[in-house]
Amino acid sequence: MTKFDEATQAIRIDEGVYDVCLDPGYSIGGPLNGGYLMAVLLRAAVDASPHAHPVSTAVQFLRAPRPGPAKVVVEPLKAGGTAAFARVRLVQDDVAQLESLVTTATLTDAEPIYADKSVIGMPDIAECSKLPDPKPESGMTLNAQLEMRFDPPTIGWLHGRPTGRPEARAYFRMAEPQDPDPFVLALAVDALPPVVFSAGQRGWAPTVDLTWHLRALPAPGWLTLLGSGRLVADGWFDEEVEVWDSAGRLVAQSRQLARVGRG
Amino acid sequence: MTKFDEATQAIRIDEGVYDVCLDPGYSIGGPLNGGYLMAVLLRAAVDASPHAHPVSTAVQFLRAPRPGPAKVVVEPLKAGGTAAFARVRLVQDDVAQLESLVTTATLTDAEPIYADKSVIGMPDIAECSKLPDPKPESGMTLNAQLEMRFDPPTIGWLHGRPTGRPEARAYFRMAEPQDPDPFVLALAVDALPPVVFSAGQRGWAPTVDLTWHLRALPAPGWLTLLGSGRLVADGWFDEEVEVWDSAGRLVAQSRQLARVGRG
Repeated sequence: MTKFDEATQAIRIDEGVYDVCLDPGYSIGGPLNGGYLMAVLLRAAVDASPHAHPVSTAVQFLRAPRPGPAKVVVEPLKAGGTAAFARVRLVQDDVAQLESLVTTATLTDAEPIYADKSVIGMPDIAECSKLPDPKPESGMTLNAQLEMRFDPPTIGWLHGRPTGRPEARAYFRMAEPQDPDPFVLALAVDALPPVVFSAGQRGWAPTVDLTWHLRALPAPGWLTLLGSGRLVADGWFDEEVEVWDSAGRLVAQSRQLARVGRG
Repeated sequence: MTKFDEATQAIRIDEGVYDVCLDPGYSIGGPLNGGYLMAVLLRAAVDASPHAHPVSTAVQFLRAPRPGPAKVVVEPLKAGGTAAFARVRLVQDDVAQLESLVTTATLTDAEPIYADKSVIGMPDIAECSKLPDPKPESGMTLNAQLEMRFDPPTIGWLHGRPTGRPEARAYFRMAEPQDPDPFVLALAVDALPPVVFSAGQRGWAPTVDLTWHLRALPAPGWLTLLGSGRLVADGWFDEEVEVWDSAGRLVAQSRQLARVGRG
């Protein structure tokens, strides 16, 4: 069992009720990373489902839970042969922290009928850049769990040279060797720095809601994360992330609505 | 009050409980259109919220409600100065038909900080095509409520000439004159024929879940709907729709996961 598997473990204590322990190693400077929290939720959702894979997850980030004990509560809404639907909540001290709707199904390795392969090209991994290590006092413990290599212009904002567009692109894998699975993908869709940093915005950019779809089971190896946004207005921005696997297949698609930081 | 306003009316009968009457005029050959059902849900969600606009709506389509009386039940999850969160359900005969999470906020007319205007161009409206009127026995009553003008190649499948890509593009407005508002946009994001028709698939393509974001309040006039998809595999397809208003602004973004038809 990897550290990530352990940190996302959900132990069934009753029908639809799971004990979890939120790991301080997935913090982004105080709050825990949203992708990590989704992975925890989904461990319970999949365990409680007759199907194997979380094909659709829509989450509202109501509050920021603390590291430590929490519960996931799964309420099945409908289960059929093709898909099952559930309401899934992450609860701490009897207060809902995340509220979600999860659709589960069982994906196979069938060849696609249609696959759009048009994407923004990435430079070779050797030409990509790491982020500088965060200062210990920043509380950014998430970074140590991940290996990411960024398309250099998309982190130009680090040196005062944002591209002027909301975007972020990187290769991604877990620091501890682990083949990607749907739970790693839940982490991946929220692992990039906010795309608005590249549009010249800075500061804490909290996710308000995020929906992601699992489209195929990822092959072993590096994932590629392609992040972009269409509109930054009225204090809101959208962030779309596509995740491609090492076999060149689209494995996940996400969109989140988030607030522009004031920092 | 327009016919659409009337057909989507939600009358508050108790704290968070609304009476609605599902109108047979929004049928797509039996089932009621998912966008219409979302508009009904959102009438109640907005009425019950301290905020004016449904900025995010994630829906699971559990069952297909019949025309006639139903209820919308709104359970507030959290309300703050920026956004309010609620669980919103459409219930008929005490059985949940749609389950959703709705985030409300109050949008203004502020100028965007960033707006990506790169889109697939549409031909002039005069060069676009109508769909043929449905046969009365088809039960496709929705078509009479809408005026749509399609980018001709994207309905080539009607004549045995699909483009080979999942896509659909059209100008859209209500048949009865009405300025677009967030409820009309809820209808618009699910109004195109399934994008997989253009990839050569046919038959009933039920939406499993749909998330859409309201990004700005639409200007009066025609809307432009740009629909596309990335992957058709394992019996599932994604459908993305962007809605642009007559002032050239992105007003809504949606993604749905749906099943490929067997017909």
